[in-house]
Parts: sequence; C-alpha cells; structure tokens
Amino acid sequence: MPVNYATPAPEALFPVAGVRLGTAEAGIRKKNRRDLTLIEFAAGSRAAGVFTQNRCCAAPVTLCREHLASDSSIRALVINTGIANAATGEQGMRAARDTCAEVARMMGCEASEVLPFSTGVILEHLPVERLIAGLPAAQADLAADHWHAAAHAIMTTDTVAKAASRRITLDGKSVTITGISKGAGMIRPNMATMLGFVATDAGLSPELLQKLAKTAADASFNCITVDGDTSTNDSFVVIASGASGCIIDSESSPYWPPVRDAVVAVAQELAQAIVRDGEGATKFITVAVEGGRSVEECRLVAYAIGHSPLVKTAFFASDPNLGRILAAIGYAGIADLDAAGVRVWLGSGGEEVLVSESGGRAGSYREDDGSRIMQAAEIGVRVDLGRGTARATVWTCDLSYDYVKINADYRS
Amino acid sequence: MPVNYATPAPEALFPVAGVRLGTAEAGIRKKNRRDLTLIEFAAGSRAAGVFTQNRCCAAPVTLCREHLASDSSIRALVINTGIANAATGEQGMRAARDTCAEVARMMGCEASEVLPFSTGVILEHLPVERLIAGLPAAQADLAADHWHAAAHAIMTTDTVAKAASRRITLDGKSVTITGISKGAGMIRPNMATMLGFVATDAGLSPELLQKLAKTAADASFNCITVDGDTSTNDSFVVIASGASGCIIDSESSPYWPPVRDAVVAVAQELAQAIVRDGEGATKFITVAVEGGRSVEECRLVAYAIGHSPLVKTAFFASDPNLGRILAAIGYAGIADLDAAGVRVWLGSGGEEVLVSESGGRAGSYREDDGSRIMQAAEIGVRVDLGRGTARATVWTCDLSYDYVKINADYRS
Repeated sequence: MPVNYATPAPEALFPVAGVRLGTAEAGIRKKNRRDLTLIEFAAGSRAAGVFTQNRCCAAPVTLCREHLASDSSIRALVINTGIANAATGEQGMRAARDTCAEVARMMGCEASEVLPFSTGVILEHLPVERLIAGLPAAQADLAADHWHAAAHAIMTTDTVAKAASRRITLDGKSVTITGISKGAGMIRPNMATMLGFVATDAGLSPELLQKLAKTAADASFNCITVDGDTSTNDSFVVIASGASGCIIDSESSPYWPPVRDAVVAVAQELAQAIVRDGEGATKFITVAVEGGRSVEECRLVAYAIGHSPLVKTAFFASDPNLGRILAAIGYAGIADLDAAGVRVWLGSGGEEVLVSESGGRAGSYREDDGSRIMQAAEIGVRVDLGRGTARATVWTCDLSYDYVKINADYRS
Repeated sequence: MPVNYATPAPEALFPVAGVRLGTAEAGIRKKNRRDLTLIEFAAGSRAAGVFTQNRCCAAPVTLCREHLASDSSIRALVINTGIANAATGEQGMRAARDTCAEVARMMGCEASEVLPFSTGVILEHLPVERLIAGLPAAQADLAADHWHAAAHAIMTTDTVAKAASRRITLDGKSVTITGISKGAGMIRPNMATMLGFVATDAGLSPELLQKLAKTAADASFNCITVDGDTSTNDSFVVIASGASGCIIDSESSPYWPPVRDAVVAVAQELAQAIVRDGEGATKFITVAVEGGRSVEECRLVAYAIGHSPLVKTAFFASDPNLGRILAAIGYAGIADLDAAGVRVWLGSGGEEVLVSESGGRAGSYREDDGSRIMQAAEIGVRVDLGRGTARATVWTCDLSYDYVKINADYRS
C-alpha cells in the first residue's frame, strides 16, 4: 500500500492534444498482463529527455540518446515491461533498433522518430519477436484518453499506477500537461527516474524543451531515493506536441513561467508517487537540508540521511532513535563540517520539534514528542548545517520487512 | 547465527605479556550484563590508532585522538557498551574526561595515558557516575587470560564475541598478538571499525606502530561493510607492550615483516568476524575487483556492489539476479567506464563461473550454475574492470528480514 497516494481517476488525467496511447499484452515475460505501451504524437512534436548516468545503461537508453541527438521530431514512444534490455550487449542494441524500425514502419515515420524504453529484469534478453508481434494490438488501441491504462501498463513492482495532470488557461488557450511514471525499487535517479513521461500540447523550442526537461528532473526525480540503487534504465522524457497553439519560443515568453511550473508540478507529483509506492514503504519522509555552503553539500547530507538503512529502519519502527540521523550527517562527506553548528528538527502535520543542537540533544527535546511524530505516515526531517544559505530537499521512504521480501522474491 | 564463525576458545587466545583485562557490570543502560571493560598495559607501552572520519564523532573518539597526540605512553583502555556518548556535546566530553581521570587515579598514571571508548545508542548521555562506580570491580577482575571475557563484554547487537590470536617465534623469542572487536551494524568503517583492539608484546617505535595500525586497518576494517553506515565511534587501536623483549625499531628489522603480517592477519580475522556476524547475515560475500586503473576505483566498484540493497537481497534469496551486480558496477562512479570491457564471475568453494562479458550475459553462463553457487554460505564475486592492474577486496554480507527486525527493534 502506498503512503497517502492513489492513482488519479481516468477523468482527472486530461487528454493532451496531439497525443494518443495504446497498450497490449505481448507476453514479454509473463502472460495475461498488458506489458507493451505505444504513445503516438502528432507530426512536428518535439521531445527532450534526461537519462541514467549508470555506465551499464540499457540498450534503449543508448538508442534514445542517439535518436534525440539526431534532432528529428518524435512521433512515438514504445515501452515494454518485464525485461530491461540492460547488460544485453550487441544483441540488446539490435533488439531496440528492430523495435523502433517496426514502429516506424507501422506509423509511416523514421526510426529516429521513435524512442524505445524497457524496464524489468537486467541481464536477460528481450524477446523482440514477441514485442513486435504485440505492436498491432497496441496501435489498434490508440486513444487520447488512455493515459490511465498506459500508467498501469508500465508498472513492474509498483503497487499503484502513477499519473498526474494539470490544465491551465493562457490568454484563452487551454494548455494541458499530463504524465505517467513507474518505479518502486532500484530508485536513486541520477538525472532521471526509472521511467517518466510528461506530454504537453504547448509548443516549445528544442532548447527550451531540453531546459524544461532538466529543470523538471532536477526538481523531482533527481530528489528521490528508495534504496540508493541507480537503475540502468532511468529515463525521463518531456514531449511537446504544440497542438494547443500555445507556442513558447524563449524564456521571455509570458507563457514560459506557468507552463514550466505546471510541468515541474506534474514531475514532482510523479516522482513523489514513486517514493510513496517505494518497495515496502510505510512512511513518506521529506529530508530538507538548509544552511549549507552549496546545494551540492546539502544534497550530500540529505541523501546520506535518505540512504541510511539505520535511519530508514528507525522510521519503520516509529522509533525516535535520532542519533542515527546525526551519524549520517557526520559521514555525509563534508570534510570540514562543525558538528556543533548543526541543528536537527523532526516534524509532521505542522508540528516541528528541535531534536539536536550544539553537537548534542536539544535541552528542550522530549522523547515523547519524538515518539509521537515518528508515528505519523508523513514525516519531515529538517537539518540546518549552520554554514551558509544553500538548501536542498530529498524525498524518501522507510525500510521495512517488505522491502526485503519484495526484492528477495522478485523474478520468482 | 554468524556465517561460519565461532569465537575461539579461551585457551586459543594467548595472553600478551604486559597486558591484563577486567570486566564488570556497571548498569550503563541495562542491568545484569558486563558492560564495562578495563585493559591495563605495562609501563612504557605505546599505542597507535585510527578513528572514524564521521564529522559527528563521539566524545571518546575526540579524547582518544587528543591523548594519542600527546605522545605519552598508554597504560589503560576503558570501554563501555550501552551508550555511545556520541552527539552529546560538551556534557559528553566532560563524561569522557572524568572517566579517564578516575581510571588514572586508580592506576596511578596520567589521564592522557588512558584511552576511552564507548559504543551503543547515539544522542543519549553517558551515566558517568555509574560507569565510575563500576571501575573498582573491573580493576579487581584484571587478569592476563581474560581476553575471552573482554570480547564478550564489548558486544552490543553482536551475536558472538570476536577475538583472534597469533603466537610466533622470532630468534627464540615468543611474540604474541591478540585482539578483540565488536560490531554488527552501522558498519562501513572509514579508517576503522566500531571497536577493534589488538595488543602485542613486541615493542615498536611510535612511527612504526602508527604505520602498523594504518596498514592493518586498511587491510581489514577498511574493507568491510554491513549496511554502509559509518559509525560515530569507529576506533581501532594497536597497543605494543614490548614485554616480549622483541623490539622493532625500523622497517629493516627482520622482525618487522612477521610481526606486521601477524597483526594484519589478526585484524582481518576480527574484521571478517564482524561481517560474518553482520546484523541478519546469512551469507558471507567477498567482492574482489581487479583490472582497475587505481585501487580507489576498484574500491568504489567493490563498495557499490557491497552496499547495494538489491544485490544483498538477491544473495539473501539465493537468486542469481546478477544484472543487479552489473547495475551497481555501472553506477559506482567511474565516469569513463566501458561496460563492454567488464567481466564478472561468481564463485564458491573453488568453483567459479563467468557470468558476464562484452556488456552482456556470457555465452557460456548457465542459470543453473548461478543458482547452485548462490545457495552457498560463502560466495565470491570477482569483477575485472579490464582497464588496468589495480585491485581491491571488500567483504560484506546479505540483507535479510532480520536486519530490518534487529534495527527496527534496537533500543527496545
């Protein structure tokens, strides 16, 4: 059960002009599940993406980068679950290329206008013939209101589908941003998440679209962790069809701030949904670090706390064993950190208590307060490093028996 | 239950000339357990240590550094469990100083000749009056053959006591090295482990002793991880009493290599015992990385594998889901790593199979082989990065339900 998250209803996921989605059962790894998704875009649509920094990145990630670098328009995304097509060598690259070629043939476009995505088990080969055999059914299923079904079809160990949508009106023009994401484990995005797709019918120049993808990823998928494992397949793509007639050419356009903010909001909702549905998660934890000399050092500290198995099991147990947070701050990697200048607060639902200051337990801190806050499903840890003005936030979850169970059982 | 580890019998822990140990129940945090240990050294003994790099290090760590820097001889170690005296501010420093002063008074030496160590819960104050009240009983218990009892008295979440001993003969002189350690969680030493103490009756110059402490730590405690959490209290100390008459003044001494090697062997046995007794551990994993351009990059890769919750849960499940190892190699942080040049083997008990090469699954690899090896209690992962001649080894354990259980319950 995710922490305070439910998939939006189908009618809350607004169709995006120029975008249709279809799903099918291709039998990639298991039978009787929709494991293939096709997303079609109107002619002239542009895409920009950010991808995993993992050096063992998957074949489809390599091909996405290649196709996006060709500066062509993008007409389709093709996404399979079950097999990640990662650590599959040359055979994996051929499988990804064959997939794009077949989609291009069906849709009458170039292969470079197709972006492929895979998620699932690493080090196993993609059954590309079954994938290709499933494509006609996915094409036949294409419809503008199939966002909800697509969000379901890209799930692996996810317990709920993840989607978010915003509709804004700019000078009388309606602009829609709708996105979906998947992921629950192997989550410590390094430039992007497992899979996240956001489409808008605004039109953006290639440079602005790339900037938007990076801005949105940095404010969302690059701020989450479940288990600290950076996936081989992380991909986050923003696609702009331009079909709303709202065209944004530069950052000085009055449409840029509202569209940018709406895309960021959708990306954050999708990224937080991944943490809320983190494998075995029972708590949603916001780690906010301030008072740093740089954003980078604030992120180091926030991720040290967010990755610590000891901190995460204490949250699972609702045990205010908060010294573990101090220990994580201490080993985060700030070589000249003065522990005496650090302050730590714990909070939930508007309440916040000072836990530690001057290198020790705060005089005002009462264990009863810590215990009460630790019971909550949504908890905030705020850290003031006391050495600057930079800040950073990371969202994470606790570490429970079920995380071990899910990952010890996965594949079986 | 630790993985293939049992505490050596009392008679297998050779007394070290010039060293006596005593333990007592001080009631630091719980009653009816020996939680206080005093180790006494003959006049003129020297000590050298390496300590946690955690910036929120404990008060006793700060005081150890101060006392060792004063270049005095060392006459006693005083060790308590239950409370770590970490994140305890000025009050914590006073408690550590008061402890050393009282030991010095009892033993007729200087406070700077006493090294204090604490382990247990962070962010709680040490009940120094109870500790001091327990000291006379520990002093009354001092005996040369109490290594076994001391190994037990320094345990916290450990399920077995950890000790190792070697006796060598050099030109007719008997030289003994005996040590104890504790630790099972919050284990990712960065210069040292939770607590490790090795004593020898060889005599070494201060410079050589410091070199020996660093050499031994780098080859042992700095090669292990259970959960990636670097403790606030990590301390590893080597003490040389010189009482054997075997005096080593320089690296050109013929005694240096055998004594150094014996100290390293004892330190490795103690460090590996911590991993074998890692919280919830059911498997002992050796991750050996070779073919790197530097030892540092080999260690990055070995620790990425050793820390990955996904790799560790796969070992717990005996599931050869080995793509997770490739993923960890890929995100370890080698920016220009060519995945196609990486090879990965899995092995146990003399058998070794090639799992991956050329960026994918090895043609010769059979899942049955992987499954069989994954059943073993001791498993080796060997990685050839294919880009140099450096190598590094890390020892770690799997991640099981019991890790979560132990750390969700700790303190209760």
